[in-house]
Amino acid sequence: MSDLSQLIDFIRKEFNHSLKSFPLPGSPKYLYNPIKYSLESKGKRYRPIIVHLAGRSFKSDPDELMKISLGIELLHNFTLIHDDIMDSDDIRRNVPTLHKKFDVPSAILAGDGIFTISQLILISLEHNSTKLLQKYNEVVLEICEGQALDKEFEDQAEIELDAYIDMVKKKTGALLGACLCLPAIMHGESSEKVEKLYNVGKCLGVAFQLQDDILEIFGDEKVIGKSLGSDIIANKKTAIALIANKINSDEWNNLISEFDGNNLEKIRNFLSDNGINSEVKNLTNTYFQSSYESLLKLGFNQDSEVYRFFKIIQGRHF
Amino acid sequence: MSDLSQLIDFIRKEFNHSLKSFPLPGSPKYLYNPIKYSLESKGKRYRPIIVHLAGRSFKSDPDELMKISLGIELLHNFTLIHDDIMDSDDIRRNVPTLHKKFDVPSAILAGDGIFTISQLILISLEHNSTKLLQKYNEVVLEICEGQALDKEFEDQAEIELDAYIDMVKKKTGALLGACLCLPAIMHGESSEKVEKLYNVGKCLGVAFQLQDDILEIFGDEKVIGKSLGSDIIANKKTAIALIANKINSDEWNNLISEFDGNNLEKIRNFLSDNGINSEVKNLTNTYFQSSYESLLKLGFNQDSEVYRFFKIIQGRHF
Repeated sequence: MSDLSQLIDFIRKEFNHSLKSFPLPGSPKYLYNPIKYSLESKGKRYRPIIVHLAGRSFKSDPDELMKISLGIELLHNFTLIHDDIMDSDDIRRNVPTLHKKFDVPSAILAGDGIFTISQLILISLEHNSTKLLQKYNEVVLEICEGQALDKEFEDQAEIELDAYIDMVKKKTGALLGACLCLPAIMHGESSEKVEKLYNVGKCLGVAFQLQDDILEIFGDEKVIGKSLGSDIIANKKTAIALIANKINSDEWNNLISEFDGNNLEKIRNFLSDNGINSEVKNLTNTYFQSSYESLLKLGFNQDSEVYRFFKIIQGRHF
Repeated sequence: MSDLSQLIDFIRKEFNHSLKSFPLPGSPKYLYNPIKYSLESKGKRYRPIIVHLAGRSFKSDPDELMKISLGIELLHNFTLIHDDIMDSDDIRRNVPTLHKKFDVPSAILAGDGIFTISQLILISLEHNSTKLLQKYNEVVLEICEGQALDKEFEDQAEIELDAYIDMVKKKTGALLGACLCLPAIMHGESSEKVEKLYNVGKCLGVAFQLQDDILEIFGDEKVIGKSLGSDIIANKKTAIALIANKINSDEWNNLISEFDGNNLEKIRNFLSDNGINSEVKNLTNTYFQSSYESLLKLGFNQDSEVYRFFKIIQGRHF
């Protein structure tokens, strides 16, 4: 695994360098200062890494892959900035969200600017840029639909697990799907293969989000580097919350209204005793499994970088 | 002029029909209901008309021109929706703004969705779509810069007229520039001609905005169909306001603090007595004149549809 770890570190470092040295004008400060603040944020860079690993399987030009990975990470930043306003979230990646650091108008405009810069980066691709941009914008619209469904859930007392997973496929999965399929489009792969890769990414997105839902309650605070249970405090509709609500609505509602952010033990015990924790873990593994099987069918064998990176994601603790 | 008037009415009708019948999914309602509300708004359609008239000079396919005009009008809607949130404006085209009719999160998301749909429409163009998309997104970034400068002005006591005009060139002019130059890009015109057409549109944008600034105070309420003086109540930095502030800051500030929206006479008299009204009118005509001269140099003679439509805009009373 060590050569892959080294490769991943290398990609992450190169990507961070490209992002940091991305040329941006100095003024108007009202637009570019918030954009610069946003680009300084430290992400785990899973998405850019997947882009590079997928593109390496096609032996694509690393500079062109860098453009795709920048385009996708900027799209990711744009959606986070606007989502944080919509959801009134104050903290992201351990620092104040953009609208908290600046204000709501600045954050709306910075998001619009970042999204536009992302399009300009992808337009500069040398091969198949029109096809790639079409898929990219279809993905963005799907992400918007995912966010809309998530907002609709806020006012619904009961949400079916299937509906939640459909929402996650759009809100989180679509972007991971783009990481896999945009390099394939650039390489001129068939529409059929592109769509299959897109769906692998959507499966991975569901697995990834379910992991997040679990880590948010059962993770190790020291490893994750932030206080746990914020989804519970915000009463977010996660997979865990909606299953708990279905199994024993009264007790679950008591538990979350009691919760003050300090003692997760009672909630953890309730979830473990009712098998909710293991149910969501099983579901997570099902989605990982499904993405592995699809990868194998698409010619990414167990030794391939993409397959092995999925395994690394499955094993993550933060 | 009558045949041109008929043509313009025809284009407006066809455009409104295309916009109304534009296929949008029914759900998620949280995303698509606000988008539909936004598309129902009645604009004067100057931008789509300019696209069609410019494209007719190149004998371009009307269906392809319709795509460009839709892309531009949706871009216009997107910027208005987000600007209205940033500027806390409640009314637009005599109806509640999107964030007033729905809420801020819905309006942010609807704007993002409309912008994305606009990109998808332009991607579907058959000729030179990559070049066209590049210019389009450069224009969007310039519009964002214009809005940023406008926001920066809010906190500045004094603004130079040149700085105001630079802001207007970006915020209003860039989009009108796009109306003229995107059809030229589609037709394969040289970069030089494209840039010249873009600059004509920027001049027109300045003239157009200065007209708006005047009509907002000196227009006929019955013709305009809304109460005048709202820029004064909101203390917006218009050309009139910043010249008045420069000439006699004390009296101007007294006048605007006194103004309750009902009696514009005192303000009108002050502006007329100090020659501010005529100064802005002269400036407006200078920008119109400059755009006519550029059109002539670019081969649009006085009988051309584009030239004659600029004359119609110059003569507008609302």
